Amino acid sequence: MTESRAKTATASLAIDAGRLRADIDAVNAIGRIDGMPGINRISFSDADMAGRRWLLGRIEEAGLAPRMDAVGNVFGRWEAGAGPALLAGSHLDTVPHGGPLDGTLGVCAALEAVRAMRDAGLRPVRPVEVVATADEEGRFGGMLGSQAICGEVGPDWIAAAVDDGGVRLVDAMRAQGLDPAAAASADRRREIAAFLELHVEQGPVLEASGDRIGVVDAVSGVFNWTVTLNGEANHSGTTPMDLRRDAFRGMAGFGAAIDGILARHGGPDTRLTVGKVALSPNFPHSIAGRAVFSLIGRDVDEAVMRAVADACRAEIERAAAAHGLGVAIAEQSWLPPTAMDPAIAGRLATIAGAARTMPSGAGHDAQTFARHLPAGLIFVPSRGGVSHSPDEWTDWAEVEHGATVLARAVAAAASEPAVTG
Amino acid sequence: MTESRAKTATASLAIDAGRLRADIDAVNAIGRIDGMPGINRISFSDADMAGRRWLLGRIEEAGLAPRMDAVGNVFGRWEAGAGPALLAGSHLDTVPHGGPLDGTLGVCAALEAVRAMRDAGLRPVRPVEVVATADEEGRFGGMLGSQAICGEVGPDWIAAAVDDGGVRLVDAMRAQGLDPAAAASADRRREIAAFLELHVEQGPVLEASGDRIGVVDAVSGVFNWTVTLNGEANHSGTTPMDLRRDAFRGMAGFGAAIDGILARHGGPDTRLTVGKVALSPNFPHSIAGRAVFSLIGRDVDEAVMRAVADACRAEIERAAAAHGLGVAIAEQSWLPPTAMDPAIAGRLATIAGAARTMPSGAGHDAQTFARHLPAGLIFVPSRGGVSHSPDEWTDWAEVEHGATVLARAVAAAASEPAVTG
Repeated sequence: MTESRAKTATASLAIDAGRLRADIDAVNAIGRIDGMPGINRISFSDADMAGRRWLLGRIEEAGLAPRMDAVGNVFGRWEAGAGPALLAGSHLDTVPHGGPLDGTLGVCAALEAVRAMRDAGLRPVRPVEVVATADEEGRFGGMLGSQAICGEVGPDWIAAAVDDGGVRLVDAMRAQGLDPAAAASADRRREIAAFLELHVEQGPVLEASGDRIGVVDAVSGVFNWTVTLNGEANHSGTTPMDLRRDAFRGMAGFGAAIDGILARHGGPDTRLTVGKVALSPNFPHSIAGRAVFSLIGRDVDEAVMRAVADACRAEIERAAAAHGLGVAIAEQSWLPPTAMDPAIAGRLATIAGAARTMPSGAGHDAQTFARHLPAGLIFVPSRGGVSHSPDEWTDWAEVEHGATVLARAVAAAASEPAVTG
Repeated sequence: MTESRAKTATASLAIDAGRLRADIDAVNAIGRIDGMPGINRISFSDADMAGRRWLLGRIEEAGLAPRMDAVGNVFGRWEAGAGPALLAGSHLDTVPHGGPLDGTLGVCAALEAVRAMRDAGLRPVRPVEVVATADEEGRFGGMLGSQAICGEVGPDWIAAAVDDGGVRLVDAMRAQGLDPAAAASADRRREIAAFLELHVEQGPVLEASGDRIGVVDAVSGVFNWTVTLNGEANHSGTTPMDLRRDAFRGMAGFGAAIDGILARHGGPDTRLTVGKVALSPNFPHSIAGRAVFSLIGRDVDEAVMRAVADACRAEIERAAAAHGLGVAIAEQSWLPPTAMDPAIAGRLATIAGAARTMPSGAGHDAQTFARHLPAGLIFVPSRGGVSHSPDEWTDWAEVEHGATVLARAVAAAASEPAVTG
C-alpha cells in the first residue's frame, strides 16, 4: 500500500459495531450482583479479575499477544513495525454500582480499533497495543495501573496504600495472585510512543451543546480540602441567637459565598463542590458544635485554582468569624492541571470532522500518560450527564461514532512516522 | 401561729443545704455506667426505676405518704389542711449521658422544701405534695408523667408510642411492672391546686446577665420541620456550575438567610436552629442530589412564630428556586407558646427579691401543668449554659439560693388561702 492509499484507508476505516457492542455486553455480564443495581468490578475483586481474564481471551482471539503485568494491567500487543508502541485503551474496573461504559467503552473500542485495522489490511509503522489499566477508579487512592506504567508508583506508596474499608493494597493484590514487590517492573515509559483514550464525558456539556465529540485540551487540576468549623453545641431552645457559636451557620455562610467567589475569581471551567457534610452532634434540638465538610475545587489553569482557593479560605474565615467559630482546613491533595498534547488534539479534531474542544473535569488514565508522553482524550456525550451510576448511558449512535473516531486516530498515529506530527 | 407570724416564718424559711446536697449526690449515684460519662436514668430503664424507688424511701423517711402511680410518677404527700394539694417537683429521668441537676434539682429541692416547712413547724392550709414525673425527657415523644397527671394521655397515644430504637412504650412499662391500661387513673387535675418547679436554666442567659434567679413568664412555642431539597447528584468535576442542581447550595442559601428572617420577623426570644443535616450521596466528589435538614423555630408569641415560619418557607423556596431544587417541608409538630400564671410569677419574683423575668426556650413539666392550672417555674443559672451533658452544673451557692426561693414559695402557696392571690 502506498502512503496516500494508506491514508485514505485510515481516514475511511470502519469498525464492526456489532462486534464492539457484543464485547461491551459480554464484559458487563461480569460484576452483576443479584438484587443490586449496576456493575461491580471493584479493583482487585474477583469480578474485576474475571473481566481482565475475559479481555485476555478476546485479545488472543483477535490475534494479538496477551499479557498481564505485575499490577494487573492487561495488554494486547500487535507486533508490527518498529520502535515504541502506540497504546490505546482505558480501564475495566468500576465504582460500586457503576455504569456500563465508564472505562469499558475505551477498552473495547481500542480492541475494536486494532481488529478493524487488521481486517482492513493496514500495516502500522510501529507496534500497537490495547490496554486495560488497573484501579483507575482509585480504590487505593491513585490511578495505580497508568501510574505504574508511567513509573510513578514507588514501593513506599504501594506498601502504604489502604482502601476506605481498611484493606491494604498489598493484601488485595496478593489475594489475586499479583506480586506487589514486582510493581516497578510495570514501568514502560520507554516502550510507548503515545497514548489515546476514548471515554464517556460523565458530564452534561456535549449533550447540552449538541456536539458529538469532545476533544480534551486539558484535565482540570483539583484541590481537595476537609474543612472543620468548631463552635459550641448547645440547646436550641435555651440559647439566644446572639450567644450561639453555630457551626451550621458558618458552613452555610461559606456555601452562600460560592457564587461571589466564582464571579470574582473563577473562569468558565472552575468548579467548587461541597459534597460531604457532617454536623456534630447532628440532632435537631442541638446547635451544631462542629461542622466538617469537603470542598473540592477544580480548574484547568493553576493560577485560577490558586486564586479561587485563596478566596475560599478567606470566605471560610469570614463566615467562621461571623459566628465565633474556629477553623481548620486540611488540604488532602493539590493536583495541578494537566495539558493534553496540542498536536494530537488537533489531529483528533480533524479526524472527528466536528468536535468541541473542552476541558475534562474528571481524572482519566490519559492524564497520567500526558505527564510523560504525548496523549489524547476523546469524549462522547453522556445521556443526562449521568455517571458513576447504573443509569449511565450514551446513545449507541454516539458510541459507534466515538469508536470510529478512535479507530481512525489509532490507525493514523500507528501508520505515520511521527505520532504527534 | 397567727397569720402574720406564719408569713414571717415563711419569708425566712431556711433549708438544710447539706441534706439537699446529700440527696442530689445519692440519687446521682444511680445511673452511672462504667467507662461512660454522665448520668443515665433513661425513662423506664432499671436505673430510672431505681431512682424512683430511692425517692419513695426518702419520702417515707421525711414522714410523707409515698405513692407511685400507673405511669411511674412518684408522689410524696403531706396530708394537711383541706382541698386540692399544692404540687412541687420535677423529674428524675435523664437523657443519655445527662447532667446531675436537670430535673433532679427540682425533685430534691421540692422534697427539701417540705422537710424545711415541717422542721419549721409550719401548718399548711392545704395538702402539699412532692412529685417526680415520668419520662419528662420524652423518650416516648411526650412528657408522659405530667401529661398523664393532667389527663392529656389517651389509650391510643399510649398504644402507639415508640422510642427511637423501636421499643414500644407499653413494653417498656410492662417490663417495669407498670400497667399501661391503667394510665387514665393517673389523672389528678381536680386534686391539684397549683404546681411549682425549680429547674436549671439549661441556657446562658442568667450567667450572662448576672441574675441569680429567673422567673419564667412563658414557655416558647416550637415548630419542628423536616425540609427536603431535591436536586441532582452528579460528578463534581464534570458538571459545570450553571448546569448543577446542588442541594447543598440550596440549603446553604437558606442558612445564610436566617439573619435576615430574624431581623425582619423575629423578636428577642425567637430561635431558629438547623441542627441535623443529611446530604445524599454525601460523597466529596458528588454534587449533593438531596439535602434533608431539620428546622426548629421557637418564640413566646405565636404570631411571631407564624411570621417567622412563613418567612422561613419563603426563603427555603427562594433558595431552592435559585438552584433548581424541589422542596418538601414536613411539619413534624407545631406547639403553641404557653403562658405561665402571672400572679404566681409575680409572687416568685417578690420572694426571690431580685429576679429576671424570662421566657423558657426548653420545655418543662411546668408547661404541661400551666395548660390546666396555675403553675410557676424558677430557673437558676447554668454554668456556661451547658445542658444535656455530663458537664452540666450550677454553682452550689446558686443551687442553695434557688432551693431556698422554691421552699419559701411552696410554703407561701401552701399556707395562704388563695394560691395565686
